[in-house]
Amino acid sequence: MDKAQQDALKKAAGIEAARLIENGMIAGLGTGSTVKFLVDELGRRVKEEGLEFTGVTTSRRTQEQAESYGIKIVDVDDVDHIDITIDGADEVDSNFNGIKGGGAALLWEKIVATNSNKIVWIVDESKVVNTIGAFPLPVEVIPFGAGHVIKKFESRGYKPTLRLDASGKEVRTDESNFVVDLHLDLIEHPQALADDLITTVGVVEHGLFLNMVDTVIVGNPDGPRVMTNSNK
Amino acid sequence: MDKAQQDALKKAAGIEAARLIENGMIAGLGTGSTVKFLVDELGRRVKEEGLEFTGVTTSRRTQEQAESYGIKIVDVDDVDHIDITIDGADEVDSNFNGIKGGGAALLWEKIVATNSNKIVWIVDESKVVNTIGAFPLPVEVIPFGAGHVIKKFESRGYKPTLRLDASGKEVRTDESNFVVDLHLDLIEHPQALADDLITTVGVVEHGLFLNMVDTVIVGNPDGPRVMTNSNK
Repeated sequence: MDKAQQDALKKAAGIEAARLIENGMIAGLGTGSTVKFLVDELGRRVKEEGLEFTGVTTSRRTQEQAESYGIKIVDVDDVDHIDITIDGADEVDSNFNGIKGGGAALLWEKIVATNSNKIVWIVDESKVVNTIGAFPLPVEVIPFGAGHVIKKFESRGYKPTLRLDASGKEVRTDESNFVVDLHLDLIEHPQALADDLITTVGVVEHGLFLNMVDTVIVGNPDGPRVMTNSNK
Repeated sequence: MDKAQQDALKKAAGIEAARLIENGMIAGLGTGSTVKFLVDELGRRVKEEGLEFTGVTTSRRTQEQAESYGIKIVDVDDVDHIDITIDGADEVDSNFNGIKGGGAALLWEKIVATNSNKIVWIVDESKVVNTIGAFPLPVEVIPFGAGHVIKKFESRGYKPTLRLDASGKEVRTDESNFVVDLHLDLIEHPQALADDLITTVGVVEHGLFLNMVDTVIVGNPDGPRVMTNSNK
């Protein structure tokens, strides 16, 4: 599948998901290339259909894109609940365990997700896997002492790499933290890994989103396919 | 006990602990009013006795104080280990469970502590308790979504308050996060509480230091008393 085909699937999933936003809703808007298509479609609906809703965003990038369409964006602490959050994912398996954070926004994404009544992910079919782990697992780490955290991950066999930008500088999250990617290939016991990561001092959050999502909309050449999580 | 008496006990504990630093050591230096006396004494030893050691500090405040005495301070990631860390504590019980973070530096304190071969706390006797919890437990929280974290803490009966400065603004940690203090009175199950806090999305770290300390030096009117943890 080339990039144009993949983009077409992402766009189809984004357009399908945009239908879930109704007038008056408070909607969490995620981050990433698929969400960009979602926000484009929501912008179209605002303009052409007079859709009115309030957005909560998980990154400055999405906030700027949404505001350029005249979508009202408020801070997560300015709302007492979020009706639905639509976000992308880097991998998801049939147990509805996923990896997020390829875009380095996993912390805000997880904060918005945990405060949402319903979570929807939009992905192209390449993101649906049997067992998560091929996608490097992002971990947000406090810069102070990060070298020691990386050494601990190495000793546990997690194959960590500090994420760098094109110029070789450490990538910084919206909270000015580092991102360490774990090259695990297969994550057989995601809950045990999540527990180990979150209790490691210096780790702020990790990209494992375990059984959090309600619905996954999968962009597919035959049209969007919907996976519904009945165990949540 | 008035403040002058308490300060005298803190100072005695600080001076006693300073004896543990030897030439060539890499020493973690904590934060707080008792540590201030420790660093004063280390400054005296550097000047009068020619003591040479390398320090790693847990706050900008301590770094500035130490450097004013000519103590060489390096970043925690510039050393491969820390021989000993000396720090204060807000409360400690006979199981060597403690609360730290009254000074809002708990995250860096915990990062330095977890990378130290030996941990020593210096306290005045008012800090030694039967069961921790009378001292409000500090929790470092990401500002994004902090209101929702506070609401969750309220619903769990943790009696949270957002820490404000004298002008009514949120206190910010060295990492620009908020501090939420939990008014628990008695913490009967510290490990269960620690697990609950650290797995709450938006929580960066908490002030429970459970069975981490090796030695507690207690400033006492009869002279410093040493508590040694044999279960670590």
